[in-house]
Amino acid sequence: MSSQSGGAKRQARVLKGFRDYLPEQMILRQRIIGIFRDIFERHGFEPLDTPALEYLEILTGKAGENEKLMYRFEDAGGREVGLRYDLTVPLARVVAMHQNDLALPFKRYHIAPVWRAENPQRGRFREFWQCDADIVGSASPLADAEVIAIMAEALEAIGIPEFVIRISHRRLLESLGHAAGVPPELATALYRSIDKLDKIGPEGVTRELTAAGLSEKQAAKVLELVTRRGEPLQLLAELREALAGIEGAEAAIADLEQIFRVLPAFGVAPKRYTLDLTLARGLDYYTGPVFEATVTEPKVGSVGGAGRYDGLVGAFLGRSIPATGMSLGLERIIEVVREHGLLPIPATVADVALVFFPETVAPAAQLASTLRAEGLRVDLSLQPHRGVGDQLKLADRKGIPVAVILGSSELEAGSAQVKDLRSGEQCGVPLAELATAVRDYIDRA
Amino acid sequence: MSSQSGGAKRQARVLKGFRDYLPEQMILRQRIIGIFRDIFERHGFEPLDTPALEYLEILTGKAGENEKLMYRFEDAGGREVGLRYDLTVPLARVVAMHQNDLALPFKRYHIAPVWRAENPQRGRFREFWQCDADIVGSASPLADAEVIAIMAEALEAIGIPEFVIRISHRRLLESLGHAAGVPPELATALYRSIDKLDKIGPEGVTRELTAAGLSEKQAAKVLELVTRRGEPLQLLAELREALAGIEGAEAAIADLEQIFRVLPAFGVAPKRYTLDLTLARGLDYYTGPVFEATVTEPKVGSVGGAGRYDGLVGAFLGRSIPATGMSLGLERIIEVVREHGLLPIPATVADVALVFFPETVAPAAQLASTLRAEGLRVDLSLQPHRGVGDQLKLADRKGIPVAVILGSSELEAGSAQVKDLRSGEQCGVPLAELATAVRDYIDRA
Repeated sequence: MSSQSGGAKRQARVLKGFRDYLPEQMILRQRIIGIFRDIFERHGFEPLDTPALEYLEILTGKAGENEKLMYRFEDAGGREVGLRYDLTVPLARVVAMHQNDLALPFKRYHIAPVWRAENPQRGRFREFWQCDADIVGSASPLADAEVIAIMAEALEAIGIPEFVIRISHRRLLESLGHAAGVPPELATALYRSIDKLDKIGPEGVTRELTAAGLSEKQAAKVLELVTRRGEPLQLLAELREALAGIEGAEAAIADLEQIFRVLPAFGVAPKRYTLDLTLARGLDYYTGPVFEATVTEPKVGSVGGAGRYDGLVGAFLGRSIPATGMSLGLERIIEVVREHGLLPIPATVADVALVFFPETVAPAAQLASTLRAEGLRVDLSLQPHRGVGDQLKLADRKGIPVAVILGSSELEAGSAQVKDLRSGEQCGVPLAELATAVRDYIDRA
Repeated sequence: MSSQSGGAKRQARVLKGFRDYLPEQMILRQRIIGIFRDIFERHGFEPLDTPALEYLEILTGKAGENEKLMYRFEDAGGREVGLRYDLTVPLARVVAMHQNDLALPFKRYHIAPVWRAENPQRGRFREFWQCDADIVGSASPLADAEVIAIMAEALEAIGIPEFVIRISHRRLLESLGHAAGVPPELATALYRSIDKLDKIGPEGVTRELTAAGLSEKQAAKVLELVTRRGEPLQLLAELREALAGIEGAEAAIADLEQIFRVLPAFGVAPKRYTLDLTLARGLDYYTGPVFEATVTEPKVGSVGGAGRYDGLVGAFLGRSIPATGMSLGLERIIEVVREHGLLPIPATVADVALVFFPETVAPAAQLASTLRAEGLRVDLSLQPHRGVGDQLKLADRKGIPVAVILGSSELEAGSAQVKDLRSGEQCGVPLAELATAVRDYIDRA
């Protein structure tokens, strides 16, 4: 203690955009992560982890305008390094480095934090967790369908009542541009503007597109094509006609048809997905189908997405390896779960508080071990000198549902008191029946 | 793809001292973390997480010579920041910041990576995981005993055959110094030298102590006192006599007596702990009992430790709050587990590979969903165009034990083939009995 009391008090604070996760939040986070992990593993996806720090050049290759959002610095050895910005680029690096150890197609999941120096706002942080599932080494639309199905299963498993996965295709968008007479060099501007349709409306998109160099007529044609709605396979048949002879259209339509045909077989209900060509997605590295999950009730918007990125592994490896995947944003999902009480979870870890007296310390420690061996989570009081009343009050404040009180006279009689901390109900129970009695009290709640 | 192929190939590499965890390693890591988490929670310890990045001043307060090992930089907002160096300092900050939300004593666990710019060597990395369990707000030796018991349970649960937890006490060491005539200002030098006894032997320690200013006689006396061996409580009784009247000795001995008296009640076998006053531990912030777990067979040395640090929270809060805890190093433990095959785990996540033909894609996706609903982890092949032989080869290479082969003629008859990929044994099974048949095959292995 002496070594501490001399210095000035250090100010306890966290960086803007960063947060502590206190136990109640962590219990919920771990629960959700556990559910996601279980779904990923039921699909045979394998866990992977990568370093938080990477060579900056690994991270910045194709991120484009995102580069300025990276946490980057020079380490003590003079290397330019950066904190992981997403989990997709590290995956591409891993596949390139470990190509001989990994059998392709490689299905992996990765649940971990990433860092972005964005302006913090509600529900947006500088350190946040992504839950990714990707398939590297398959060009088949079946792979795209499987990651879409995983996304739907994950959101259903945590009880999100209303969500829809919007599905689009980069190449089909490009073809729509062609059909409307948009030159290839304006394709990126086209994606970016259309992606904002939700936010800026058709007038806004038209304004942006004409400013970028499209004619009014071209902009109108593009908008007409991307805003068509309908049953996916029927809509695709219409688009096939509308885009007959346009380069790339047929292949993209065939990809999407395969995806939409197989999704029901994966057990995904038709109301959970839609063909929505207004979806383009920002990142440069997408090359095929793209998708995004939007929670419609409550209206929190996107909770995850992704798509096919057949060029990214090749950027490291030199030869192209196809890849597709999806990413769920844990923070947004937790926001929905908390606001709607979707996963009722206990406020604390312990099932039972063990409360006792200075003269029963050793027997109490022993009893705690016994109860733990029977599978109970036991919070052993560390304040026998404080009196039973205070110890019970603390247990109640922590949210522990049941207490066991071990006094010396009862101990001699081979029993202890069990108390329901919510109802106040209390009774003596033989030590051998204690675990069962505690469970009964918990179940009754 | 076009957007990638233009640029130069990015070199796929990781920073020195950093590693990817490929699936086989991750499966083992997750298994061990799960076991630790389960033990922490059975003791009623609650999960906590804190940011990877902190204000540098939070991290550097008492780390002293460790400061140069920190990953530190100026962020884009001009703040001096650093990557978390351990999990103890962030805990102290959390308690100071959230004192009104946390009921004390607060028992928390934290399993997360920390970063240190140390020179990488075998089993030592710049990014590594710690598994910490701490109790904040209890000065009772019962709290020290509980974290020692947790450490012992954790190491036993993963099957480490031979380990011992060495227990010492900073104040008792100080008293031993007093008794030998060592002036207080040499106490730190004393800890540091004695801590190296294992490495440099008694001659080395004597050399260091005399160099620091002790007389030969003082050094010899200190060495005699700290190297006494015996049954802990008996040894403590001897030390009580030898140190009668020395400031602080009686309180420290009483602490240790309480710990050693209650450890058996926590279910810790006597062979798992020892009183060893040659243990001092490096960090400045320890104030009372300190402990360290050493694996003796195989001889990997320390796999974890910690102790009481009653001043650290006060450094942030301004008023002192007692605290004690323990930290297990995941990397060292994994090294032991791997080298000795202590936890036999599968090489892959999937229980069964589902292999099929281009004409049975949709029924295969549907069958996969059914098997998953029955709790199996199913790797759906994404290569129906490749032929069954190739698909089976891939499943076998991945280490998946069983395959289900779904052909169209058998599908019409309502059955599928099940194949044991190790023995080659294969037979037809009605679809309704498929999950059971797969489980039988797995269990037989």
